[in-house]
Amino acid sequence: METYIVSDVGGTNIRVAAFDIYTSKMVAQKKIRTQGQGQLPTNRLVDAINSVGKETEIKAIAIAAPGFLDVEKGIIIEAPNIPGWINLPLRDNIKDHFKVPVFIGNDANLAALGEWKFGAGIGHKNILYLTISTGIGSGVIIDNHLLYGERGLAAEFGHVTILPDGPMCGCGKPGHLEALSSGTAIGNYVRDQIRHGRNSSLKDCENPSGTDIYNAAVEGDELAIDSYERAGKYLGIALANFLHMLNPSIVIFGGGVSQVGELLFKPMRDSLEGAIISKEYLKNLIITTAKLRDDVGLKGALALLISKYQSPEIFANQILLQ
Amino acid sequence: METYIVSDVGGTNIRVAAFDIYTSKMVAQKKIRTQGQGQLPTNRLVDAINSVGKETEIKAIAIAAPGFLDVEKGIIIEAPNIPGWINLPLRDNIKDHFKVPVFIGNDANLAALGEWKFGAGIGHKNILYLTISTGIGSGVIIDNHLLYGERGLAAEFGHVTILPDGPMCGCGKPGHLEALSSGTAIGNYVRDQIRHGRNSSLKDCENPSGTDIYNAAVEGDELAIDSYERAGKYLGIALANFLHMLNPSIVIFGGGVSQVGELLFKPMRDSLEGAIISKEYLKNLIITTAKLRDDVGLKGALALLISKYQSPEIFANQILLQ
Repeated sequence: METYIVSDVGGTNIRVAAFDIYTSKMVAQKKIRTQGQGQLPTNRLVDAINSVGKETEIKAIAIAAPGFLDVEKGIIIEAPNIPGWINLPLRDNIKDHFKVPVFIGNDANLAALGEWKFGAGIGHKNILYLTISTGIGSGVIIDNHLLYGERGLAAEFGHVTILPDGPMCGCGKPGHLEALSSGTAIGNYVRDQIRHGRNSSLKDCENPSGTDIYNAAVEGDELAIDSYERAGKYLGIALANFLHMLNPSIVIFGGGVSQVGELLFKPMRDSLEGAIISKEYLKNLIITTAKLRDDVGLKGALALLISKYQSPEIFANQILLQ
Repeated sequence: METYIVSDVGGTNIRVAAFDIYTSKMVAQKKIRTQGQGQLPTNRLVDAINSVGKETEIKAIAIAAPGFLDVEKGIIIEAPNIPGWINLPLRDNIKDHFKVPVFIGNDANLAALGEWKFGAGIGHKNILYLTISTGIGSGVIIDNHLLYGERGLAAEFGHVTILPDGPMCGCGKPGHLEALSSGTAIGNYVRDQIRHGRNSSLKDCENPSGTDIYNAAVEGDELAIDSYERAGKYLGIALANFLHMLNPSIVIFGGGVSQVGELLFKPMRDSLEGAIISKEYLKNLIITTAKLRDDVGLKGALALLISKYQSPEIFANQILLQ
């Protein structure tokens, strides 16, 4: 069997899967810890690829990875959650091992590609995908193409300044969207308000989790509700900016925080409607949640390979793109 | 002779030119007032096209226009400076008259295309073009294609919120880049500071023009210098956002205010360097001023036609794109 191998490398787990290149069906998969047994993550990735690809003819490999990537050169510039992955020529390392074309992509970018090909974005040409969890990641499809920018650094929509004097972002700059509307930001706001004496059912909770805050909001806790309203308000302002810039036909929200639904999206829509410069941007615009779940990274990497090769017959003619 | 006809319609003037489709040389041009003689602007445009196109075989027409355009449908949704141009099917009106393919485009978008094809952006695939004058317009080239978005409303980079509690923008929303860094914003700031008692050589000037403020700054007036520093500071924050989103290889500044040079660009660069999340975005990035001047709109419209038809031979085969 001829296969595409795809992988989603995260700070905690490495997931790898093999797909039949003709049917796009998953034929094998494996999930391992990113670190362990004194092995480097790259070696663990190689072993996992060997494991799912064994007894198949691997035609190409695509890897989703977090952080800054130089997609053209196949280099991980910096993957903050994976020790040692700094200026790592991951593409060439994997290519040297398997002797097939290898592609890498930022995980949120590939998630956008996955939703475009297999999820909520099917049939749309212009897509903004935002994933709201611990941080805020994003991917953009423009006219059916993934937005990479000159070196693959584009689509860092979590790191746009919304409030210049606002709270510090994890990246060290103030007032970014991620510092206002991510799960981390919501938790920080709740803790900060309690520290300043605000009353809340969460006040005896030393470090309230996202689930704690969600449950408190559902039960009517004003601070918890307020924390989502604040996040939603800034998300709406940011979204207006993004619509003015990109004019997509659909906005897809992924990530755990998006699951809270109207607690976040109602204030977001209110703020969006106040901030948009023309109703034309909202005409026929779809705002929805992601369809793919845990395997969005794998499906995105598969979508990347399918878009690179268009038709599997390309291999029969020995036309390799890389 | 076979010609492309291009036009740049503004609030004050309509410019029209004819270009030889084989040599891309301008063979005729005309500039008229947008309004006058009791004629509607559309009729004046038709007359001007007739005038420059006479005795030539017109192959296609492209028109740059200000405001919101639905590029796909060829409709001017709203051109604020041209009375009556609301929901105007300009493309079909002109097409019905000349019986050739007609394209319309937002003026700043086409200016970006002009700089890409004929100006400072030659050889670049990923370009951010910002024009800073009375307002702030923009155009974006991604992988050699103009960014339109779903309906042609994309690239309104002047209307992104930089300071949610900031001054009101001409569009009626607060804190937009245009309300902080445009020529209008600089003038408003100077007037406002003088009204609040700040000393300045401009204080006896009832309504200081851009030239007045520039001259005062050159002569060391602190308020005038400060007005550019403030505009540059916010421009730098906005530019960091744009780089995080688009990762271009070049940023091109057009418009009258860009001509003030380092008064604006020095504080912009300082603020950009403070706001960027990784030096990788600045590596090999070129920040420069536009090369095309008054005819940037015409050249942009010409670039649009050239990109649509690729080769003039297309007409010989009667393959018309529209």
